[in-house]
Amino acid sequence: MSSLQNLPGFRDFYPDTCAARERVFQAWREASLACGFAQVDGPPLEPLELYQKKAGDELLGQVYQFVDKGERSVALRPEFTATLARMAGARQRDYKKPLKWFCIPQVFRYERTQKGRLREHFQWNCDILGEAGLGAEADLLAVLVLGLEKLGLTADDVVLRLSDRQFWTAFLEGKGMPAEKHYEVFQIIDKLDREPCEKAQEKLGTLAGEIFDIIEGRTDVLATPAGDRLRELKGALEAMGLGAYLKIDLSIVRGLAYYTGIVFEVHDRAGVYRAVAGGGRYDHLVEKVSGVSLPAVGFGMGDVVLGEMLNDKGLNKPETSRLDVYLALPKEEARPALLELAGQLRRGGLRVDYPLAAAKLGKQFEAAEDRGAAYAVVVEGPLAPGAKVQVKHLASRQQKEAVLAAAESGWTFEPKLSSLFVSP
Amino acid sequence: MSSLQNLPGFRDFYPDTCAARERVFQAWREASLACGFAQVDGPPLEPLELYQKKAGDELLGQVYQFVDKGERSVALRPEFTATLARMAGARQRDYKKPLKWFCIPQVFRYERTQKGRLREHFQWNCDILGEAGLGAEADLLAVLVLGLEKLGLTADDVVLRLSDRQFWTAFLEGKGMPAEKHYEVFQIIDKLDREPCEKAQEKLGTLAGEIFDIIEGRTDVLATPAGDRLRELKGALEAMGLGAYLKIDLSIVRGLAYYTGIVFEVHDRAGVYRAVAGGGRYDHLVEKVSGVSLPAVGFGMGDVVLGEMLNDKGLNKPETSRLDVYLALPKEEARPALLELAGQLRRGGLRVDYPLAAAKLGKQFEAAEDRGAAYAVVVEGPLAPGAKVQVKHLASRQQKEAVLAAAESGWTFEPKLSSLFVSP
Repeated sequence: MSSLQNLPGFRDFYPDTCAARERVFQAWREASLACGFAQVDGPPLEPLELYQKKAGDELLGQVYQFVDKGERSVALRPEFTATLARMAGARQRDYKKPLKWFCIPQVFRYERTQKGRLREHFQWNCDILGEAGLGAEADLLAVLVLGLEKLGLTADDVVLRLSDRQFWTAFLEGKGMPAEKHYEVFQIIDKLDREPCEKAQEKLGTLAGEIFDIIEGRTDVLATPAGDRLRELKGALEAMGLGAYLKIDLSIVRGLAYYTGIVFEVHDRAGVYRAVAGGGRYDHLVEKVSGVSLPAVGFGMGDVVLGEMLNDKGLNKPETSRLDVYLALPKEEARPALLELAGQLRRGGLRVDYPLAAAKLGKQFEAAEDRGAAYAVVVEGPLAPGAKVQVKHLASRQQKEAVLAAAESGWTFEPKLSSLFVSP
Repeated sequence: MSSLQNLPGFRDFYPDTCAARERVFQAWREASLACGFAQVDGPPLEPLELYQKKAGDELLGQVYQFVDKGERSVALRPEFTATLARMAGARQRDYKKPLKWFCIPQVFRYERTQKGRLREHFQWNCDILGEAGLGAEADLLAVLVLGLEKLGLTADDVVLRLSDRQFWTAFLEGKGMPAEKHYEVFQIIDKLDREPCEKAQEKLGTLAGEIFDIIEGRTDVLATPAGDRLRELKGALEAMGLGAYLKIDLSIVRGLAYYTGIVFEVHDRAGVYRAVAGGGRYDHLVEKVSGVSLPAVGFGMGDVVLGEMLNDKGLNKPETSRLDVYLALPKEEARPALLELAGQLRRGGLRVDYPLAAAKLGKQFEAAEDRGAAYAVVVEGPLAPGAKVQVKHLASRQQKEAVLAAAESGWTFEPKLSSLFVSP
């Protein structure tokens, strides 16, 4: 009989990898809530038209799309921003501005399978809608960095590369370039790290020298009038204590057509990985998708590159779902007592497990250790106030005696298990 | 410009509904961990073949299926059990038995759109693999009930209807019916609440009388030899304190072909809703899917019927993502101080927000209330040890003064905000 595999590019999450994933989600959630973002979510399946409406066809070639049983063209979401724009547009009147929303969707792209390239990943999205000022960018970058810090990363590990499309727009306007040609230049700049430099120079023509001076830091962009916005944002981020993360880097323009202002990426300092996160301002997208004008700024952070980085830095320490108490059963006759005790301890908030079928006591202690239990409690007879139970502290292999006491909420141990093995 | 909608049968989760959803997920997660289950997950997209291998074609008609860009026949998961069987079979050697795994996948079925019928839902799955004895059933039902209790439901609200296909197998064998005919009888019993009674009577023929006596409780099945297993399981559940939830009900057989023993459903006492949860033993499925023989028992609980029930009972009380502190800013000059304070308080674990752009102070206090903040703190000038700040307790509308103190981790308030408004 052949055994089935999962699809290439899709992940199975067994207990260890799932615990690592959940730890990342928890850090993202805590950072979001600490910064006043509310969680939202949308459907993983959307009308294909939603992604066609979103400017730029970059995505469509990689979208999982099909026609459903109702003859609708549908797509597995390749990203969340289009859904967010649809949702925000539809109900923006019900909420005070700014909207601060976060989400942890799984997204899907049919990419060529290469090493480390998956066809699904989870992506932390934070977006602020309804605020056109740079205060939104500052707050958005604050939650991004807090999410990284909650995973143990610091400014020694990651750099926040900050740029501004409006800087480039002002520069190109100053050179007399018509607006419809600007995006072409963004595309050339965006490809700089993947294409030979000469090719870009040729395409940029007479502007090449000045553009390279800006990108490579020989021009102090913050000292130019077009650098005002970056200077203001830098000041706000420094006030928030995030200065060490920051690098002004005008080579960042982001490939997508819909960005309209500040754009940024987070990279590892060593430059080993692809971007950990990226985002920027997209003031026209909500209107394009929903007809409602709403300025917006947001970012996405995937779990795959982040996970590789955490692994390599030894920061991937999932909280294993270890037990508090393993109840051991020397004789089957005591099983009803064990079940009663298990039920009460679990209801009281402890993590409790026990042998589901008869097993030798030695095997049971092995199981308790294997499951990471703090204590094994041996249940020998009927539960009664004052009844003695043997308690084993698995880390120190010490064994002590406690007695059962009847509290209103059920049986408790005297002394408490946590104080039983404390050295005086 | 037309505004786009989500697909029929798919849900958008705005902050309020998302918070309700997360509260349910959290209850499921806590119950699972309390009972020693470890979280797993698999891909939402699987080879179609996986569901074709799973016995019974009930599912395939409703599966979202398509051919991907790599010419693979794929399906959006209509349920999780097939994935679980695949995963457990592939790596069962790496884990000690029993495996106790839980998962909260989103699953997809293309059903006719009716009122209240969705095409996606989230489903809490708990499964115990590698234990053939009834101890597994008892433990599985314990986690199920704990999950409901954590949401505020009690035995007054829900009933656990318990049955056993092996009881029926023994009964039908006793009547000389060949094994291959049994499933037909299960199907007739399964449809009893949807079909006219006469039709079932006709189909069951001479067995109708006895079968109806069993189903309608006139025969004391626990007193028969074939009732031994149900009696044992009932005893274990009673020992765990779950007796009040229990009803032996042999009309439950579950439609799916792969169940092999104990089967059960959870319903509301009033019988208003469809089943809240259902499951049972499926000892041959893992082998069918993966080639590895592994006895198993599991259940699924969806979020839709459960959510309706929680709503109607007034138990749907999501923890709103309320703020701890809203920092108010009378003058823009103090913004750097406000940003510094916000950054530090957030890093310290508080939920903090503030105006992203200049706004009247009255508006800011309104925003603080709208966001459910406990306190509004007015930031007037540079941060310095001993600097006074006005603190408003929003629930009581009291205003008091605190001073800033410099701790190692950053600024703190003296006295602590939580003790500032405590009545003596």
